[in-house]
Amino acid sequence: MNKQRYAIIGAGALGGLYGAMLARQGFEVHFLLHSDFDHVREHGLKVDSIWGDMHLRDLHTHASPETMPPCDVSLIGLKTTQNHLLADLLPAPTRDGGVVLVLQNGLDVEADSAAIVGEQRVFGGCCFLCSSKVGPGHIRHIDFGKIVFGQYRPSSQSSATAAQNNSTAAMGGSKTAGGSKAADGGTTAAEGDAKAVSIGNQICQDLNSAGVPTEFSGNLALVRWRKLMWNIPFNSLSVILNASTKQIMDDPNASVLAEAIIREVHAGAAACGVEIPEAFIEKTLENTRKMVPYDSSMRLDFLNKRAMEAEAILGNPLRAAKESGYEMSRVETLYHQLRYIDQTNS
Amino acid sequence: MNKQRYAIIGAGALGGLYGAMLARQGFEVHFLLHSDFDHVREHGLKVDSIWGDMHLRDLHTHASPETMPPCDVSLIGLKTTQNHLLADLLPAPTRDGGVVLVLQNGLDVEADSAAIVGEQRVFGGCCFLCSSKVGPGHIRHIDFGKIVFGQYRPSSQSSATAAQNNSTAAMGGSKTAGGSKAADGGTTAAEGDAKAVSIGNQICQDLNSAGVPTEFSGNLALVRWRKLMWNIPFNSLSVILNASTKQIMDDPNASVLAEAIIREVHAGAAACGVEIPEAFIEKTLENTRKMVPYDSSMRLDFLNKRAMEAEAILGNPLRAAKESGYEMSRVETLYHQLRYIDQTNS
Repeated sequence: MNKQRYAIIGAGALGGLYGAMLARQGFEVHFLLHSDFDHVREHGLKVDSIWGDMHLRDLHTHASPETMPPCDVSLIGLKTTQNHLLADLLPAPTRDGGVVLVLQNGLDVEADSAAIVGEQRVFGGCCFLCSSKVGPGHIRHIDFGKIVFGQYRPSSQSSATAAQNNSTAAMGGSKTAGGSKAADGGTTAAEGDAKAVSIGNQICQDLNSAGVPTEFSGNLALVRWRKLMWNIPFNSLSVILNASTKQIMDDPNASVLAEAIIREVHAGAAACGVEIPEAFIEKTLENTRKMVPYDSSMRLDFLNKRAMEAEAILGNPLRAAKESGYEMSRVETLYHQLRYIDQTNS
Repeated sequence: MNKQRYAIIGAGALGGLYGAMLARQGFEVHFLLHSDFDHVREHGLKVDSIWGDMHLRDLHTHASPETMPPCDVSLIGLKTTQNHLLADLLPAPTRDGGVVLVLQNGLDVEADSAAIVGEQRVFGGCCFLCSSKVGPGHIRHIDFGKIVFGQYRPSSQSSATAAQNNSTAAMGGSKTAGGSKAADGGTTAAEGDAKAVSIGNQICQDLNSAGVPTEFSGNLALVRWRKLMWNIPFNSLSVILNASTKQIMDDPNASVLAEAIIREVHAGAAACGVEIPEAFIEKTLENTRKMVPYDSSMRLDFLNKRAMEAEAILGNPLRAAKESGYEMSRVETLYHQLRYIDQTNS
């Protein structure tokens, strides 16, 4: 079997790193670039990484999707605030039936890609990654990097009622690589699910072979909500309080608040039918205490006067929980604060 | 009957204005000054006010409480963050049995004065006032100014259980000038209450005669919680969002958040046995929309790197509601944010 061909849509701190790892391993990777196109074509892509520094030249670079070949997997590394561009960017690389791997922050962020290629061809995933772009074609990856992804099932993420109906089956799904609801005896679209599991397994294998620790989960909703337990408090507070993760964890008031928000998100997930073990609350706090002092992605967006992902990271979960009858008051407070700050920051 | 003698403890934006109004009317007013003492003794006190500009010379000024005569009423115009000074400042002017009128923001802020002179000699009140100190001995009063005060009854403010037990009687008390629980047939400490009502009526009459619209209420808890419905959202958001009242009300996210906070405080008051009519929510918003663009006192403290009154304005109500079994999640979020900001702002 030939190696899968990858498209990287948005080769920034995230897409650039994972694309470079795949390219270094010999995969055919096509990078769609915007502002960095000329620089990367001339000087290559430089990645300072805990996985080994790389300086990759002679990459397949594209300034427009029209020059891209059909790819098996299109990896979305754009910010969700750029999702309005997907209708122009995705059709070319996915034109022969390739799938989309949406590695964006937030909840139900796959919906925009699904509207273009169909939800059965969409995977979503979370990256536990500390990486940032430090210059044109220059990425610095300082900590973590694992990807956990799964098949996109809109009904188990965004529609609360459906999520509750599905929760038993979804929770019964294996959370280890290769598991899926269909493999456990799902009753609908079994063939489509089986095909998706096969593709998911291949992507998982590709990334692991390239040195990116990757897990294919049968429960994307669980993965996303677990990530939100970090993203909502630490992205929000880092902007609102102008603080690093370390400053938040070292302060008695900020850390108590972070924990209260984490507990609220945990309860919001439960309302949506996503049961996360209680112990994960303390684990999230403990991981953050041990983290290299880090500016969250939202804080970097704020400091660079870019739009913040308040809708994907706070707005969507807030609405999903509210539809399930649970009001996340703290998250709602943060959401409105961020929207105000976002609007005055442009 | 001789005119009452007044002490002004803390002659800033609030104490300076009311003291000047009383002095202009011919009351004997003793101003306890700190940083402005030399300036006011030499140049007098300058007040630019919507009630008429004043430049008062030859005032009774004091650099220390030791030189003050016993006064009938000591008006506290200090910030609550200065309350640790009261043990030194209050004994001299109150030494012949004078009462204390605590015109400070927050909830249960009378407790510190009550610990010194006894709670039966303490009145608390809220000022609906836009005034600020613009220079040494120079106050600018730009809008409003009404005082609503009442007898301090710790059990009806800070202890949730007691407040609930008392609520029927308290709510039955007249809210107009001169009314009080005792006058309506209170069962305990009736003589003390009758004396307090008499003193309260006299203070009310004095201030009104001096041109300060003043109301003596039989329900201080109601007055304080109603004020908190403004103070909590607008003080907090003006600091956290770095915004004026106008910027908050003009922004869809900030104004929606302000309303949600107001509703939460309204519910917190109800949990403490203080029933505020629903219509007051919209009235609070409407008054703020019509307000001259104004920096809240907390924002002025923040901008001038002074300690903020987070405990008095948010912490005390938060704890009172929690003791009654009601969690004000939004207020708690704001409280921790302000405490963090306060700590990093010094």
